[in-house]
Amino acid sequence: MDYSKMCPKYELAIDILGKKWSGLIIRVLLGGPRRFKDIKAQIPEMSDRMLTERIREFEEVGIMVRKVYPETPVRIEYELTEKGRGLEGVIEAIQEWSEKWM
Amino acid sequence: MDYSKMCPKYELAIDILGKKWSGLIIRVLLGGPRRFKDIKAQIPEMSDRMLTERIREFEEVGIMVRKVYPETPVRIEYELTEKGRGLEGVIEAIQEWSEKWM
Repeated sequence: MDYSKMCPKYELAIDILGKKWSGLIIRVLLGGPRRFKDIKAQIPEMSDRMLTERIREFEEVGIMVRKVYPETPVRIEYELTEKGRGLEGVIEAIQEWSEKWM
Repeated sequence: MDYSKMCPKYELAIDILGKKWSGLIIRVLLGGPRRFKDIKAQIPEMSDRMLTERIREFEEVGIMVRKVYPETPVRIEYELTEKGRGLEGVIEAIQEWSEKWM
């Protein structure tokens, strides 16, 4: 692989994965659909505002969808798309590296 | 793998990889040792100050070393350590995902 040439697609991926809390939020959602408060519960240091921002960005880039279930009270869940679940390999590579080296 | 539990090592790895330009700098250095200006030439939008900061952090976490060759003029090169080269799998996983989905 030629690392000397910068690929714009790679830069976009790094941009998504590199934002604060992105990796952890995706990791939580790889476990299945979650409500806002469930995600928050697993990443207690993250503010509501940060999670709201990441959710908006994840929806924009198509890695996550918001599902509204018309129950009483209404239930809203966040779920990775196929594109989002494709990040599992990336997450696992990071996991393997960090367990070996950190 | 249990994604519901947050692993501190993973968080540290994300922290390194998630900082602005980190992914691209590592990608350039996977091609072999590079001088400051060589890295800059491949990532033209990055400021000198940002590269200096990333270099300092990479040295601190042990993924990169600075090598000084006592020539005239002195030659300084930056090189990934074994720990740093171990990030190739992560970089490749991001590459594969971004080529498929972006």
